[in-house]
Amino acid sequence: MMKNLKVPIIIVNFKTYSEATGKKAIMLSRIAEEVSIETGVNISVAPQLADLASVCNAVSIPVFAQHVDPIFPGSSTGHVLLESVKETGAVGTLINHSERRLKLCDIEVIIARVRESGMVSVVCTNNAPVSEAAAALKPDIVSVEPPELIGTGIPVSKSKPEIVTQTVALVKHVNPCVVTLCGAGITKGEDVAAALKLGTKGVLVASGIVKAKDPKKVLMEFAVAINAH
Amino acid sequence: MMKNLKVPIIIVNFKTYSEATGKKAIMLSRIAEEVSIETGVNISVAPQLADLASVCNAVSIPVFAQHVDPIFPGSSTGHVLLESVKETGAVGTLINHSERRLKLCDIEVIIARVRESGMVSVVCTNNAPVSEAAAALKPDIVSVEPPELIGTGIPVSKSKPEIVTQTVALVKHVNPCVVTLCGAGITKGEDVAAALKLGTKGVLVASGIVKAKDPKKVLMEFAVAINAH
Amino acid sequence: MMKNLKVPIIIVNFKTYSEATGKKAIMLSRIAEEVSIETGVNISVAPQLADLASVCNAVSIPVFAQHVDPIFPGSSTGHVLLESVKETGAVGTLINHSERRLKLCDIEVIIARVRESGMVSVVCTNNAPVSEAAAALKPDIVSVEPPELIGTGIPVSKSKPEIVTQTVALVKHVNPCVVTLCGAGITKGEDVAAALKLGTKGVLVASGIVKAKDPKKVLMEFAVAINAH
Amino acid sequence: MMKNLKVPIIIVNFKTYSEATGKKAIMLSRIAEEVSIETGVNISVAPQLADLASVCNAVSIPVFAQHVDPIFPGSSTGHVLLESVKETGAVGTLINHSERRLKLCDIEVIIARVRESGMVSVVCTNNAPVSEAAAALKPDIVSVEPPELIGTGIPVSKSKPEIVTQTVALVKHVNPCVVTLCGAGITKGEDVAAALKLGTKGVLVASGIVKAKDPKKVLMEFAVAINAH
Repeated sequence: MMKNLKVPIIIVNFKTYSEATGKKAIMLSRIAEEVSIETGVNISVAPQLADLASVCNAVSIPVFAQHVDPIFPGSSTGHVLLESVKETGAVGTLINHSERRLKLCDIEVIIARVRESGMVSVVCTNNAPVSEAAAALKPDIVSVEPPELIGTGIPVSKSKPEIVTQTVALVKHVNPCVVTLCGAGITKGEDVAAALKLGTKGVLVASGIVKAKDPKKVLMEFAVAINAH
Repeated sequence: MMKNLKVPIIIVNFKTYSEATGKKAIMLSRIAEEVSIETGVNISVAPQLADLASVCNAVSIPVFAQHVDPIFPGSSTGHVLLESVKETGAVGTLINHSERRLKLCDIEVIIARVRESGMVSVVCTNNAPVSEAAAALKPDIVSVEPPELIGTGIPVSKSKPEIVTQTVALVKHVNPCVVTLCGAGITKGEDVAAALKLGTKGVLVASGIVKAKDPKKVLMEFAVAINAH
Repeated sequence: MMKNLKVPIIIVNFKTYSEATGKKAIMLSRIAEEVSIETGVNISVAPQLADLASVCNAVSIPVFAQHVDPIFPGSSTGHVLLESVKETGAVGTLINHSERRLKLCDIEVIIARVRESGMVSVVCTNNAPVSEAAAALKPDIVSVEPPELIGTGIPVSKSKPEIVTQTVALVKHVNPCVVTLCGAGITKGEDVAAALKLGTKGVLVASGIVKAKDPKKVLMEFAVAINAH
Repeated sequence: MMKNLKVPIIIVNFKTYSEATGKKAIMLSRIAEEVSIETGVNISVAPQLADLASVCNAVSIPVFAQHVDPIFPGSSTGHVLLESVKETGAVGTLINHSERRLKLCDIEVIIARVRESGMVSVVCTNNAPVSEAAAALKPDIVSVEPPELIGTGIPVSKSKPEIVTQTVALVKHVNPCVVTLCGAGITKGEDVAAALKLGTKGVLVASGIVKAKDPKKVLMEFAVAINAH
């Protein structure tokens, strides 16, 4: 559907976990690539910025940045320029993650810049009204993640299904082209299955994969759940 | 003097300039490396984070990040982890640049983390009292840059020499191990010579090199000024 | 229409202007009250927080805070608690002004808290898409103000009418209960008249009144324009 | 010693506690005033900004703001202008509280502005090195408060005495005119006594008083400890 991305999809956010930094980011990306190839399910990874180029070089699956700043080329020391992200080969970026919340006006600028660059924008949100507001800005994807569930292993798709269904409905109402994902607490195949049943097109997951004893096994379980849908 | 760095030194901050993004970051780093080799003068570059690994791979001169966040490995999506920077091969990081000012308590955390990691910390400051405060936190380098002169071509070392000399004196008083650099408006060899005469150990420069018609020529002029000192 | 507010309305933002600080805030509020009584036009003022209680005590017109923080009672030293604002007698608050932009998720929390407290929320926005997003959060009022025109004397209602008409249309589409105002560069009665013709229900003005040689005269001109509509 | 303030001193930070908002802020300030008059001990209060003017009107003890912004009169909607604070009758302001951390360069601007206005600056810090850095900026008072102890009832003066003694020593070394206070977990007279023995000139306290069943009794206990020193 989107320029560089197909759904349903699993996006694995590497955060700043030791288990997914530097060489380990490349290793984990290769695991994601293997599962994607073996199952035919779309899987993306979102490594740290310093690892973005090396991950893009190492794998053929779509790679996302975790954040870009609302800036243009120029005098912005220490900020993240979309153009620098694009040149690494990344297909898009997360925006407004729970751990990197942004100003409303900056989200609008970033989504517009990502759109103009032909890349994919994934805006993270914390509830249904915020998702509706985000959808009005015409991103490619809205991913709803109640912050209180992130990293808990309590899956949003099973513990707060109403947040997901409300988000799916409101986002569709505002803009039927925007895809909805969900995240927070996703650790099992059944959580992914539940997410799809609620109307999402996939999941944004972090610790559930990155901190798993056997990331490949869990990712395979997720992919099987998607193929079974 | 410092673990991985010798002074006097020229540090070239690439900011988010188009002229120093992606492949152009590598090209400009190679120019800096050439001048450093040809003249024997210490020259470092500070490219954007997405370009850090590729620049570190491409050149043998010391490379700096432009910023790191006051975080530890874990759940910090979209932030810059020192460990990820170190793994690229960078020797250190700028901290608190005029375009990326930080909280006092965060500067302290970052300097301490950089020190423990064996890397080099360069804290940017805007005037003499702030430089004194920064020096109390025991960074390796303080670089004083009056923000109103940045990018103007009006050299701090000639138009506001008292800010530089006060900073050199206060920093030395607080902690004689801390090296002082200066920046803002540096575009000519004579500006670099003036900076050294005021007691600094070099310059932090950005547009003066990055936006020069012939960066190699200007950088060579800077290096000659250092060798003539 | 809203609990404590009627439209069309003129809201005068005192910012942190010397001309509208402390005793001068009370004097200017009294001028606004006089014009409101003399013309029958709804006029509100938004003084600084330290002046809020004394202004509320001094005048009978509705008074707004300029900002509240997305916090609940508790440990938030140096932040602005909605309950403290309400207890001064203020009827509502500006949110996300151009000079105090907020995170999307915080705007949602603040609007919800203002609604629950029975107060009036005025969300400031910079363009039509951001206005649409803000309207999805169900504030009472959206006030669109292109930042580049603020303080210039170039009226948004005449120089960028399309921003205003698009905002009016998008806001109405998302939520017909939300009132649209506009601001930036409003200094004359004809600017106010133009704003009403474009479909707004009034203006948010600052320097046009606060920095006028004769604030009463200009405010009277604005009120006459509203009555003539 | 300072223009408007004597030491030793107890400063009571009202934060945004319900128990110290609006009319309750005035009541608690009157209790502080009573204890100060009855014991002769210097006691100050730091209410929320919206309550500042009414508290200053109600009591004769020194009153502090909890925060001011690094701005000058002008276009800064929703920010806290020092001039507006001064006009309420407050004698000074807290700066950089744990719940309102500031950029290093902004702390410098605020301290300088407070100094020029003849008011009293109290910079909060989290450890000894940050205290040393803050002292270099020449505030009137540095108050060290380890954030992990704030609100716990575990007194810094007894559980982390080395942080307090190091801070006292470093602050004195940098600038002997700067007074050191400490805070965090102070709930008993013996905590205050311990703070004075470590070389401080008093305490910054919040929940220990504001959330006490009988604030007057606890404040009296604190004052007795100071008089017994």
